[in-house]
Amino acid sequence: MNSGSPTNGTASARTTLEKPAPTQREELIQALATGQLSLHKLPKDLPAREAASIRREALEQAADTKTKGLDHYSFDAEVVSTRNCENLIGVAQVPMGAVGPVPVRGDYINDDRYVPLATTEGALIASVNRGCATLRAADGAIVHVEDVGMTRAPVFRTSGIRESTAFTDWVEDNEDEIRTQVEATSRYLKLKDIRPFSLGSTVFLRFRFSTGDAMGMNMATLACNQVIQDLIVPETGVEFVSLSGNYCVDKKPSAVNVQEGRGKRIFAEVELSEEVLKRYLKTNAEDLTEVQYRKNMLGSTAAGSMGMNAHYANMVAAFFVATGQDIAQVVEGALGTTCIEKRGDGGVYISIFMPDVPLGAIGGGTTLQTQSDALSLMGVALDPDEPGAAAMQVAELLGATVLAGELSLMGALSSHHLARAHNDLGRPTPPSNGHAAQ
Amino acid sequence: MNSGSPTNGTASARTTLEKPAPTQREELIQALATGQLSLHKLPKDLPAREAASIRREALEQAADTKTKGLDHYSFDAEVVSTRNCENLIGVAQVPMGAVGPVPVRGDYINDDRYVPLATTEGALIASVNRGCATLRAADGAIVHVEDVGMTRAPVFRTSGIRESTAFTDWVEDNEDEIRTQVEATSRYLKLKDIRPFSLGSTVFLRFRFSTGDAMGMNMATLACNQVIQDLIVPETGVEFVSLSGNYCVDKKPSAVNVQEGRGKRIFAEVELSEEVLKRYLKTNAEDLTEVQYRKNMLGSTAAGSMGMNAHYANMVAAFFVATGQDIAQVVEGALGTTCIEKRGDGGVYISIFMPDVPLGAIGGGTTLQTQSDALSLMGVALDPDEPGAAAMQVAELLGATVLAGELSLMGALSSHHLARAHNDLGRPTPPSNGHAAQ
Amino acid sequence: MNSGSPTNGTASARTTLEKPAPTQREELIQALATGQLSLHKLPKDLPAREAASIRREALEQAADTKTKGLDHYSFDAEVVSTRNCENLIGVAQVPMGAVGPVPVRGDYINDDRYVPLATTEGALIASVNRGCATLRAADGAIVHVEDVGMTRAPVFRTSGIRESTAFTDWVEDNEDEIRTQVEATSRYLKLKDIRPFSLGSTVFLRFRFSTGDAMGMNMATLACNQVIQDLIVPETGVEFVSLSGNYCVDKKPSAVNVQEGRGKRIFAEVELSEEVLKRYLKTNAEDLTEVQYRKNMLGSTAAGSMGMNAHYANMVAAFFVATGQDIAQVVEGALGTTCIEKRGDGGVYISIFMPDVPLGAIGGGTTLQTQSDALSLMGVALDPDEPGAAAMQVAELLGATVLAGELSLMGALSSHHLARAHNDLGRPTPPSNGHAAQ
Amino acid sequence: MNSGSPTNGTASARTTLEKPAPTQREELIQALATGQLSLHKLPKDLPAREAASIRREALEQAADTKTKGLDHYSFDAEVVSTRNCENLIGVAQVPMGAVGPVPVRGDYINDDRYVPLATTEGALIASVNRGCATLRAADGAIVHVEDVGMTRAPVFRTSGIRESTAFTDWVEDNEDEIRTQVEATSRYLKLKDIRPFSLGSTVFLRFRFSTGDAMGMNMATLACNQVIQDLIVPETGVEFVSLSGNYCVDKKPSAVNVQEGRGKRIFAEVELSEEVLKRYLKTNAEDLTEVQYRKNMLGSTAAGSMGMNAHYANMVAAFFVATGQDIAQVVEGALGTTCIEKRGDGGVYISIFMPDVPLGAIGGGTTLQTQSDALSLMGVALDPDEPGAAAMQVAELLGATVLAGELSLMGALSSHHLARAHNDLGRPTPPSNGHAAQ
Repeated sequence: MNSGSPTNGTASARTTLEKPAPTQREELIQALATGQLSLHKLPKDLPAREAASIRREALEQAADTKTKGLDHYSFDAEVVSTRNCENLIGVAQVPMGAVGPVPVRGDYINDDRYVPLATTEGALIASVNRGCATLRAADGAIVHVEDVGMTRAPVFRTSGIRESTAFTDWVEDNEDEIRTQVEATSRYLKLKDIRPFSLGSTVFLRFRFSTGDAMGMNMATLACNQVIQDLIVPETGVEFVSLSGNYCVDKKPSAVNVQEGRGKRIFAEVELSEEVLKRYLKTNAEDLTEVQYRKNMLGSTAAGSMGMNAHYANMVAAFFVATGQDIAQVVEGALGTTCIEKRGDGGVYISIFMPDVPLGAIGGGTTLQTQSDALSLMGVALDPDEPGAAAMQVAELLGATVLAGELSLMGALSSHHLARAHNDLGRPTPPSNGHAAQ
Repeated sequence: MNSGSPTNGTASARTTLEKPAPTQREELIQALATGQLSLHKLPKDLPAREAASIRREALEQAADTKTKGLDHYSFDAEVVSTRNCENLIGVAQVPMGAVGPVPVRGDYINDDRYVPLATTEGALIASVNRGCATLRAADGAIVHVEDVGMTRAPVFRTSGIRESTAFTDWVEDNEDEIRTQVEATSRYLKLKDIRPFSLGSTVFLRFRFSTGDAMGMNMATLACNQVIQDLIVPETGVEFVSLSGNYCVDKKPSAVNVQEGRGKRIFAEVELSEEVLKRYLKTNAEDLTEVQYRKNMLGSTAAGSMGMNAHYANMVAAFFVATGQDIAQVVEGALGTTCIEKRGDGGVYISIFMPDVPLGAIGGGTTLQTQSDALSLMGVALDPDEPGAAAMQVAELLGATVLAGELSLMGALSSHHLARAHNDLGRPTPPSNGHAAQ
Repeated sequence: MNSGSPTNGTASARTTLEKPAPTQREELIQALATGQLSLHKLPKDLPAREAASIRREALEQAADTKTKGLDHYSFDAEVVSTRNCENLIGVAQVPMGAVGPVPVRGDYINDDRYVPLATTEGALIASVNRGCATLRAADGAIVHVEDVGMTRAPVFRTSGIRESTAFTDWVEDNEDEIRTQVEATSRYLKLKDIRPFSLGSTVFLRFRFSTGDAMGMNMATLACNQVIQDLIVPETGVEFVSLSGNYCVDKKPSAVNVQEGRGKRIFAEVELSEEVLKRYLKTNAEDLTEVQYRKNMLGSTAAGSMGMNAHYANMVAAFFVATGQDIAQVVEGALGTTCIEKRGDGGVYISIFMPDVPLGAIGGGTTLQTQSDALSLMGVALDPDEPGAAAMQVAELLGATVLAGELSLMGALSSHHLARAHNDLGRPTPPSNGHAAQ
Repeated sequence: MNSGSPTNGTASARTTLEKPAPTQREELIQALATGQLSLHKLPKDLPAREAASIRREALEQAADTKTKGLDHYSFDAEVVSTRNCENLIGVAQVPMGAVGPVPVRGDYINDDRYVPLATTEGALIASVNRGCATLRAADGAIVHVEDVGMTRAPVFRTSGIRESTAFTDWVEDNEDEIRTQVEATSRYLKLKDIRPFSLGSTVFLRFRFSTGDAMGMNMATLACNQVIQDLIVPETGVEFVSLSGNYCVDKKPSAVNVQEGRGKRIFAEVELSEEVLKRYLKTNAEDLTEVQYRKNMLGSTAAGSMGMNAHYANMVAAFFVATGQDIAQVVEGALGTTCIEKRGDGGVYISIFMPDVPLGAIGGGTTLQTQSDALSLMGVALDPDEPGAAAMQVAELLGATVLAGELSLMGALSSHHLARAHNDLGRPTPPSNGHAAQ
């Protein structure tokens, strides 16, 4: 098999040397394909790209198929298979488009920027881009981000109310010592606070950290584990049940995160005049607020949704894939509430609120080649003198992008253009063709 | 600029002919980079790959940076830029690994399959794969999927209660005619039912369709639009406010979807003996149910989460990216509830429940090259004689994979191995390095 | 002790005969007061009023106090202590006021009626009464009630998905036989449907009944128990876990009841002109919709409330106490959503929606003397020819009353009169004096 | 009409003097009955009891009926009609029974007390009383109460994010001045803190007060109004929209109150041995935890309930009516979560958690005659040296009572005795007869 990779000029030379002998290679493929060998049990000395190739061929054989594009990647397989993705077999290529320029009026960015978005859902980028044009025709998106911090809430068991109270009192009394210990685990980690919540014999400690430019879930987890093992359990004797107690709350929609925030809490807003509404969104204040009222407000309430918005998830997902955020955190990152209010003479005010957005400018998928590219195209760069500022910029860019996408779809719905847009955007055979961008 | 693509042997020849003259090319880049030209206003006759290259260079210029991997894709840019992604600039490469074999005991698959997952979060695939080994050591994952159907709920305005009642009565009386009209819009679309919900002067009609192998949001939207414009509004005279009334509910966590389901409703379960728990998960029934109780059940309740699970989102996101599902639908697809109960002599019973999973085997991103590859590696193929069966297979595979991932993390937490796993899995510099797989 | 009751002219004569001899009486009091005798273990042949007197004296002695009003009741102690209240010691006197006339424009009442409300919270009745005047100045309250039916959802345990599916299939196949059996338990009970919901090895069967003029929780429970014991368990062999599985849902705020309704689902609405708003509510459309928007809609969303209203609970509680409904059901009965929309020239449209109101015109507390009085003052009477109609009338009256109270408070808030109203309404020493009517 | 009241020995004498002349009286009745005169427009100099009598007769005439018990009350009509209930027409007599002794092991009470409960729902008191016996057989109910404080959250409008931020900054900077002003409105009021929450142009300020022995909603409202009018609006110029912004949250089930608490946050627990379970509850640890798991935990989750309990509402409602709390606050007071865990050899641990219980020992309905009687029978008395202690005692008594009721019903369900209990408890004609105590 020829991986056909453009980067394997040298790789090919290398694999000539390191590749297993044909017989051994076939044997490995055969063993994997039949399930005799585990996917993670290939010889450790195989180059990562070759290991991926062997696994891929084994899966092809097992499924009696041939793949066409999985081997077509340019990231460093050695690094990726160590840090990001075990049992590597190749790549998922998600098309990346761009919107912008997005006029961001924030505390960390006051500039117009292009924003890359990765999606497979036709019409989404066109719609967000229309929103960006609308923002440009107004005074740009005012954005404000609060660095709430990353949370992790281990759970403990006590004998009951009295021990629970004694335990949470101990935590309060010893917060300084706990701080010293957790902050020793990473120079980027600062403990903001610890909030207990107890239910009889169950105690959750919700730790909240600032984590610099990283999203920080991993360093928060490690720090909690350390201080529990080294300090909390030895000193208090309570039973340590689980490092995550689901009161963190990671990757689930939750009331506590909406109330208190998690990661970044993002606000963005814009005022649109009658002219801008008409020219860019083909709508007017009356129709737009009517859709806001019956769809976002009443519909969300009728449905028992958490928050009230049209489609934050679309922008958050496309932004997260493009920039290497943890895609599973779209679940919480897409929560939030849109407000649209008539203002002035035929105009409107639109704001978005995203209480629970974990994201970073370093670590996780952000350091992968194409994701790093996307961050650099947005002009995001780490500033050693101001740790955390790059992540705040990412959050501001996301906020402006979500605002653009939200106002564009709301405009389309209020002018009854949604279905038309989907029909027009190169969808000759809609039935076989996915779905609307919302 | 050299796109360096391996597929541009012919593409290069073509671009020699069709590529704009250097001056024109530079002018376009310049115009984009300065914001004078809109991203979607490049000349229509530019080849898609060349247009992407021009946009990318313009963004590089605007941000004063150089990208390294964005041009490294193998999908057909012409198709993708028409159907999936406007303003194409390149690709987001998400590493794809595999887990398995996954022993699926379902109504559509009774076989062991490998499952590709695309993620950037280290430790996730290793963890899910451990769950697969556990399932193999047991009797496999029993899976059951209900094809609830795709929903879309337009919203209407009436003068009040009496007109609302008359309107919903009319809908009930005319369901056959409505069915005829919506089903005429696509041969894959069947109307299951229409459920109204009203609040004074606001009426939502929750249409529910079966949509064959497609996820179906787009065809549902188009069908609703058609029948509203052609039949419902002309006949009833009610005000049509918005094609989506947020009672659908698409891409938001909602009570109505949890109650009634949306897309596929997925159940999966397995029984694990004391030996399997010990050998594969390094835990036991006592510790595992203790974590289930205090984390999944009490923690989720304390947090005001919707449902109770540890990390469905991780598996759903990785599966959705790999197989070309709409990534924004991870928001609803990740909802659900895990049950773990002691059973037999030292064993446990584990089940998962996912009420609201929109997915398909055709359309949207599933037809992209690498995503189509992933589906074929799982052995999923469209069957013309049984439309819808391929999507049911996809759902069964997802169910088994989520079960594997859930039991693995729960096992790790109950044996206090979570932090250790993250530390061990090739994370030499954890602080700069993302976060735990949950 | 002298009970001082006005009705005990005869009672006194009777007690002369039946009252325990002084010594025995004192001994009983002493035994109760010291905890040697249980409250429910007084001799069965004691007249109920005398037993109450003995218990009361015992409690007085135990607490070293004297009560002043507990013996002041006129209901039939024999009946009450058998049907409504064990361990009777006397009465809680809740002051009853009235509002109205309330112009009800419903399907069961098209008339103006006075409505008694029992409350201890000053300003509430005055406020609701102002709402009634407002309704009279408009065209009355349009009310529409749906008889959703009383639900009860027992829970069962199976071995897993397959048995759960077989079980729910059996229930569907045998619905006729189940209907026959449950309906045999009461001539007022009709089975509407049975909806299953399962989570792995757990199956809930949500039975829904129409129950005539009774609220019906008791007859529903008895019917479920009967058919489970006699038919479902013997025929299917599933494990019966609990007669209530909390999926009913009784007396808890729940998404399923909001979606599907329980008891009665009540709608009411009115249009108010600019003049009416000004004269009766001292407000205008602008200010009123502003409060509706920021308080009821945004505030409720921010708070993570279920539904959006200002204070349904106040009217529901006062109505339930006055008319003998189950006061604990205020929890679910007070759920709901208010809409206020500008309409016409300076006017507004206001609607309320109450999805989950269990109530009745017979049974429970409705047959007590004062509660029966309250129902008769509202003109509610059982009609043997139309069972269920009286309960529908009660629901219509409640709907109109809630509408009146809701618009009055919203008016007060929008004209910033709330605190003033509370200050004015005879509250010379507010600090020691409860709280605002909302 | 003869009011027949035992207190009207003097009243009769007075009414001889003050009662309107027969003609005038009839005229007033006639005017009310026909709707010509408003209920609140009777001559101010009429004695309250006479005014109530006139209104009652008018309503009787309007409804063409005669009431039997409404005039049968012993509270002071002059006081009640001024402070508690406008448009007085009489009384709702709710039967009061008692449970106990309840062994309370709290911080404010360490004693056995009888607890009066007012209800119309047969079987409830018997069931709670069985729970009390169970608690006595164990070591009593350990109770712990936190005085979270009464909240009120007015809502304001700004021009957008920037003004919102400036506003909340101003509030933070001026908290001392705000404290001084609010605390000047009542010597019982202490400001605990002010927490802002903003959504674009909308800002909620959640004030939290300690309010001594009063529930405190009224004094909190008055204090907020004062400081808004005198300080906040004049100094900041923001628009004051509404004194309550539904982020308080009063009388609605809400996530924010569950997270942060409101009023009192109550914990109670007990351990029950195998013998106690068997003897008092006719059950065992296995069956009891099974019902807890499938009903309280899975059922509540399936239903989308807030919290997980069987029937707190029943005890809270009966306790609130008996002791003069605001009955509408049962809505929030009944929220909470029960835990039941196996412990020791065949025993269990049961805890309850009630996050949001507004209650008091003074003010509102607590000062009414029978309600004051109920408080005194529980041994609750105001202590001038320790303001707030009496309210904490009330909360502890409620906590122990709810625990007793919860464990009793759970026991009944787990031994399948629920329906039987209802059938046995003197319910000869169940169909006409209310419903189960849950």
